[in-house]
Amino acid sequence: MSTQNPIFIPGPTNIPELLRKAVDMPTIDHRSPLFGKILHPALAGVKQVLKSTRAEVFVFPATGTGGWETAITNTLSPGDKVLATRNGMFSHRWIDMCRRHGLDVQVVMQDWGEDVPAARFEEILTADTAHEIKVVLATHNETATGVRSDIAAVRRAMDAAGHPALLFVDGVSSIGCYDFRMDEWGVDVAVTGSQKGFMLPPGLAIVGFSPRAMAAVEMAALPRTFFDIRDMAKGYAVNGYPYTPPVGLLNGLKLATEMLLGEGLDNVFARHHRIAEGVRRAVAAWGMKPCAARPELYSDSVTAIRTPEGFDANRIVSRALDSYGVAFGTGLGDVAGKVFRIGHLGSLTDVMALSGIATAEMVMADLGLPVVLGSGVAAAQDHYRRTAPAAPATA
Amino acid sequence: MSTQNPIFIPGPTNIPELLRKAVDMPTIDHRSPLFGKILHPALAGVKQVLKSTRAEVFVFPATGTGGWETAITNTLSPGDKVLATRNGMFSHRWIDMCRRHGLDVQVVMQDWGEDVPAARFEEILTADTAHEIKVVLATHNETATGVRSDIAAVRRAMDAAGHPALLFVDGVSSIGCYDFRMDEWGVDVAVTGSQKGFMLPPGLAIVGFSPRAMAAVEMAALPRTFFDIRDMAKGYAVNGYPYTPPVGLLNGLKLATEMLLGEGLDNVFARHHRIAEGVRRAVAAWGMKPCAARPELYSDSVTAIRTPEGFDANRIVSRALDSYGVAFGTGLGDVAGKVFRIGHLGSLTDVMALSGIATAEMVMADLGLPVVLGSGVAAAQDHYRRTAPAAPATA
Amino acid sequence: MSTQNPIFIPGPTNIPELLRKAVDMPTIDHRSPLFGKILHPALAGVKQVLKSTRAEVFVFPATGTGGWETAITNTLSPGDKVLATRNGMFSHRWIDMCRRHGLDVQVVMQDWGEDVPAARFEEILTADTAHEIKVVLATHNETATGVRSDIAAVRRAMDAAGHPALLFVDGVSSIGCYDFRMDEWGVDVAVTGSQKGFMLPPGLAIVGFSPRAMAAVEMAALPRTFFDIRDMAKGYAVNGYPYTPPVGLLNGLKLATEMLLGEGLDNVFARHHRIAEGVRRAVAAWGMKPCAARPELYSDSVTAIRTPEGFDANRIVSRALDSYGVAFGTGLGDVAGKVFRIGHLGSLTDVMALSGIATAEMVMADLGLPVVLGSGVAAAQDHYRRTAPAAPATA
Amino acid sequence: MSTQNPIFIPGPTNIPELLRKAVDMPTIDHRSPLFGKILHPALAGVKQVLKSTRAEVFVFPATGTGGWETAITNTLSPGDKVLATRNGMFSHRWIDMCRRHGLDVQVVMQDWGEDVPAARFEEILTADTAHEIKVVLATHNETATGVRSDIAAVRRAMDAAGHPALLFVDGVSSIGCYDFRMDEWGVDVAVTGSQKGFMLPPGLAIVGFSPRAMAAVEMAALPRTFFDIRDMAKGYAVNGYPYTPPVGLLNGLKLATEMLLGEGLDNVFARHHRIAEGVRRAVAAWGMKPCAARPELYSDSVTAIRTPEGFDANRIVSRALDSYGVAFGTGLGDVAGKVFRIGHLGSLTDVMALSGIATAEMVMADLGLPVVLGSGVAAAQDHYRRTAPAAPATA
Repeated sequence: MSTQNPIFIPGPTNIPELLRKAVDMPTIDHRSPLFGKILHPALAGVKQVLKSTRAEVFVFPATGTGGWETAITNTLSPGDKVLATRNGMFSHRWIDMCRRHGLDVQVVMQDWGEDVPAARFEEILTADTAHEIKVVLATHNETATGVRSDIAAVRRAMDAAGHPALLFVDGVSSIGCYDFRMDEWGVDVAVTGSQKGFMLPPGLAIVGFSPRAMAAVEMAALPRTFFDIRDMAKGYAVNGYPYTPPVGLLNGLKLATEMLLGEGLDNVFARHHRIAEGVRRAVAAWGMKPCAARPELYSDSVTAIRTPEGFDANRIVSRALDSYGVAFGTGLGDVAGKVFRIGHLGSLTDVMALSGIATAEMVMADLGLPVVLGSGVAAAQDHYRRTAPAAPATA
Repeated sequence: MSTQNPIFIPGPTNIPELLRKAVDMPTIDHRSPLFGKILHPALAGVKQVLKSTRAEVFVFPATGTGGWETAITNTLSPGDKVLATRNGMFSHRWIDMCRRHGLDVQVVMQDWGEDVPAARFEEILTADTAHEIKVVLATHNETATGVRSDIAAVRRAMDAAGHPALLFVDGVSSIGCYDFRMDEWGVDVAVTGSQKGFMLPPGLAIVGFSPRAMAAVEMAALPRTFFDIRDMAKGYAVNGYPYTPPVGLLNGLKLATEMLLGEGLDNVFARHHRIAEGVRRAVAAWGMKPCAARPELYSDSVTAIRTPEGFDANRIVSRALDSYGVAFGTGLGDVAGKVFRIGHLGSLTDVMALSGIATAEMVMADLGLPVVLGSGVAAAQDHYRRTAPAAPATA
Repeated sequence: MSTQNPIFIPGPTNIPELLRKAVDMPTIDHRSPLFGKILHPALAGVKQVLKSTRAEVFVFPATGTGGWETAITNTLSPGDKVLATRNGMFSHRWIDMCRRHGLDVQVVMQDWGEDVPAARFEEILTADTAHEIKVVLATHNETATGVRSDIAAVRRAMDAAGHPALLFVDGVSSIGCYDFRMDEWGVDVAVTGSQKGFMLPPGLAIVGFSPRAMAAVEMAALPRTFFDIRDMAKGYAVNGYPYTPPVGLLNGLKLATEMLLGEGLDNVFARHHRIAEGVRRAVAAWGMKPCAARPELYSDSVTAIRTPEGFDANRIVSRALDSYGVAFGTGLGDVAGKVFRIGHLGSLTDVMALSGIATAEMVMADLGLPVVLGSGVAAAQDHYRRTAPAAPATA
Repeated sequence: MSTQNPIFIPGPTNIPELLRKAVDMPTIDHRSPLFGKILHPALAGVKQVLKSTRAEVFVFPATGTGGWETAITNTLSPGDKVLATRNGMFSHRWIDMCRRHGLDVQVVMQDWGEDVPAARFEEILTADTAHEIKVVLATHNETATGVRSDIAAVRRAMDAAGHPALLFVDGVSSIGCYDFRMDEWGVDVAVTGSQKGFMLPPGLAIVGFSPRAMAAVEMAALPRTFFDIRDMAKGYAVNGYPYTPPVGLLNGLKLATEMLLGEGLDNVFARHHRIAEGVRRAVAAWGMKPCAARPELYSDSVTAIRTPEGFDANRIVSRALDSYGVAFGTGLGDVAGKVFRIGHLGSLTDVMALSGIATAEMVMADLGLPVVLGSGVAAAQDHYRRTAPAAPATA
């Protein structure tokens, strides 16, 4: 596979040149004052990206999965009750993790392609008059299906039910891509990683804890050491870590937040939306449908595309790699073989997106799917043209 | 301009990751034996790329222009007669250089879009019974017009005329891109640079001298020091340079030749041809024409595309940069404003080429040219699909 | 702090140019076959460095601390009994982790500067006729004190006691630096990280599990998800990871093992010993003493140097950084303020070591310690000269 | 040779991390406005480093030798008379170049180790009442001998003689290292390269032309094309180059000037002086002498050290490389075999310098020279300690 082609998996993303260079740094003494000058701006930058003034941010040398484990082990005790929905592979895995840690998970099953069912959550929470549910889990962007859930609606449901449960949100593939408002939505733990909206290599689990989540830490009886945020907080207070910090990635995170905030979060979100919309118009031009059930669920990070009944969608991914050196995402879990995914998050241009769309067309034609070459490209071009920045008047 | 988009100028090209890393090396002692282990394989690799067993190769810290100056100052004396054609900006510049160095250049004027006129050369050389013409200059690939000339035909013309002049070939944008046969074609000086077929940053003038060209050096009275190949040859004999060598670029050149020879020159040429042919089919689909006068002149390195009468072609280049962050080449000299150029040399994939074609379509539509979005892309896709490597049978 | 000076902390180490470039790679699809070509050679290489033919190797995006947590959570259940010694900060922390995970740790207290007490372990294990002790923990190289323990002796003690406990070894700062023999010593879990003997940036927890340790996994009731080796093993079987793998670091690990094995482990160990011995001779020339109690305990990875009574050793570390831009290690825990540490592991040359020794001399002189400038350097030079490779006869 | 050891040749120098990253940039369109944003700040930065408000700066993809050729071919005509001194290899080569270009060079022979003889120049210029001498050549820092000449004195000599010749100065290994005042000293052409005081890889010839030198260009009849500053000036006026510019190196030059000017030129010079003085004290402690005849001639860029009569100094250089992987400079020309050179220019710290001094001691001891190990190190340490920045009071 040529490393010159852009990559269209839904993370890790294409890494901007500047971030690669920020990560690739020589060893410094992580116990020297130099380290604090990297760490604290990185934490402060993440906080701004989370749109929070109250959260405490912790960054572990791990992945988003480690972020989930951080969230639950620092706030819960064995047997604690958790409310969740299963609407894709990543919500499924978080539920599985909770069970393996001895939590009692009440799962609302959803079709893959649907979102977090706020109304159903409201009913359950209202019925839970004993307030046995300690935490509500919600996956903001289901990477497996390309579904965006309405976290504000989940918060409204919780408030309507008058329920004191904490709200934990997996924002791994939404934060830094589209709007996320930790404080306004009353998110208690936000989880993400380095390799999606932050455009970095994988290797960082990034979590934000609200004051209420912080208050839960002392009571939480689940065992933890590596992911204990108390050790981490103690370390940060003296510019350090409880173990060896991933300095280069943190240096990259510092710069990534500067880039996102320098561009302006609204501009970042608009950029993602524009690229995503072009991809969706291409899908429509092909006569195909996203996995996401309704337009209001369409994710600006990734589009999962349903292939015709009886066709193995994985063939598209294999063929794209073998014949054209391009990486798309396969379907996972319940939608394995039924969808392929085009990731359009992170640092991607319209021009790069067009090459992904064009490749998908060649691959589908190669595999006998009834796609007109150039059709999706034209639909995306039309969108990108009309929304291109700085476009002077036509002759 | 995003550095994530591919670049479509006809050199410098997109630089492969491996070559960037080979060039970016820490300082070593260029007077130590280590240097010889970089220099000599690089020279030997270039020789193979030139398809020569007899040439001596010299690499200067300069550019192709410096290569031209090396060619003439090491072989000629003031007042010497040179035969050349002017069929584009780069042949024009070489002629200009000869005149500034006091040479007597007989110029055959050609329309821009035409090639080196071998038949006319034969007439002139046949008429030159006194053998006053010392050198014939030929530009293999006119980067300004996207025209490939037939160097073998030039050699045949010289032989038919029984003329002993030396044959100097500017292969800056052909060598490493399409077939070049120094020995078979009797090329006496071949000139190229690092930033085209060798896929490196600019900074190296690369020349090959035949034994006959070497024999001319002692008599050549044009002053030279920096570009004197005798000093260079003396240095090489002791693993050194007459001044500070560009070690990183030479290390890159060593690897570039390994990459080209490892892939196989025929495969490299086939790859260039395939990419170029896709671009040309797109141009045809747009209802436009290359600057090159006839198909047999079409260059596999760059396509110069004629825009409609009265339309300023430079606007395409500006718009592509401003609105889409993509770089195409402007028209130069006699074809300024009349053509824009898509470079397709070096390390480029079909997928990258499609993004360039798609961008050109958006730009032309933006500027009111009657181009159907997706039309060129579809034509190129069709070609790339049918010629894709390793394509298993369709379902 | 200039990043041009070498670093003398006991890890992360100076990173060789080639490894920095291997880690700094563009994004590839970690679900494509390409990833397996990085992962499996990396795992196989680690196995060879561990001198094991039987172990299963797992690599987590974490640190050595995560490696410890992997070791205990995959093999033990709450209330299980563990035998350990506390002879430095890192053994202390491992004990603390065990307790936080509900294990019952029997701790043999040792002075800091002493090693793992094999004889005392033998007594305890012999007395444990009910075989309640499930695991013996041993820190091969105590990074805090520069003490090397004799793991073979610990194994002999266990065998002499006829005790079936598993043997877990923290080899974070020994593996890849000096001799480690997983199979021969009957080590059941070996733990290390990327940033010491493997000379990489931090970010990988690397563990080897013996067949006996693997057998313990199914019974182990400690909760785990991120660090569950069963998920990891399942992933490896299909060239994948249970979550996003740190591809660049794994690519670096692959190359690091190639470099170590290419040099030859015995040569790697001899190189470390030579550099370390020079540092120790410098310490002796200063009239100072290592923290390690006896020469047979001296570590080839790091030397902790005792400073005079009443002198705050941390001042050396601060001053080195402030005045000379050089990083040494501070004393930790029980020896905080009493020692400073010179790391000499990983990719370090004699020449670099001399600059560290020379800096320490300047700093100590600055701070009024009675050190003769050049004295330690001369002692080290004498050693390095006599042991220099490829030394031709003197004039 | 390990690339981890610092390098002690008198250029190319150790390259700071930031500059390596600035040079290693992806291809941009050098005909786009982006290029001007690199080029013009680089030119302006060089001008400030030259301490000139009047000069025009030109940067060629070449080396310092190309800079010399630029100087003479743009200002002189065949047969023109030039005054120069030969006091080292680089002055020798410049004289040789002039002769090869048909100039009439009047050479004042000096012992190698002596400087430019201003008094003798004054006599000659005074005697040249016809003002036949068009240019005076002076090498500011003779890299071969480690001799600094007094350019202000040369200017005073010219003024005292009332002679209108132009003053051309080779500042290749002085500019950016110690004080250079183009305007104040009336320098008409200043020549340098990228790989010395600018701390970059080789590949750039950097020249500054005074208004008087610019005025000479139109009359200059020496042939030139590649090095013609008129073409270059025309290019700069439209943000371009007459051929393909070395964009990465220019980007590095821009940053290098920002680094030098940000540190402050006086601080840069003081830093060089401090490092150089430590090296010189080491030399004295060894009982050896610099090649430079008198202390006021000692260069802050490089020290050439005389070895005992009958000892081949090149053995030191070979042995340092073979046994310790360290590069020193050999003696060149008249002092070949009689001196070895320690380069101490560019981005070098005291700590790095100490490792070079320590290595030289080991090598000399290896070769049987009567050097006390640690003696030079101690002398340098003493100097570096007393002059260390930010040194708080001793205990």
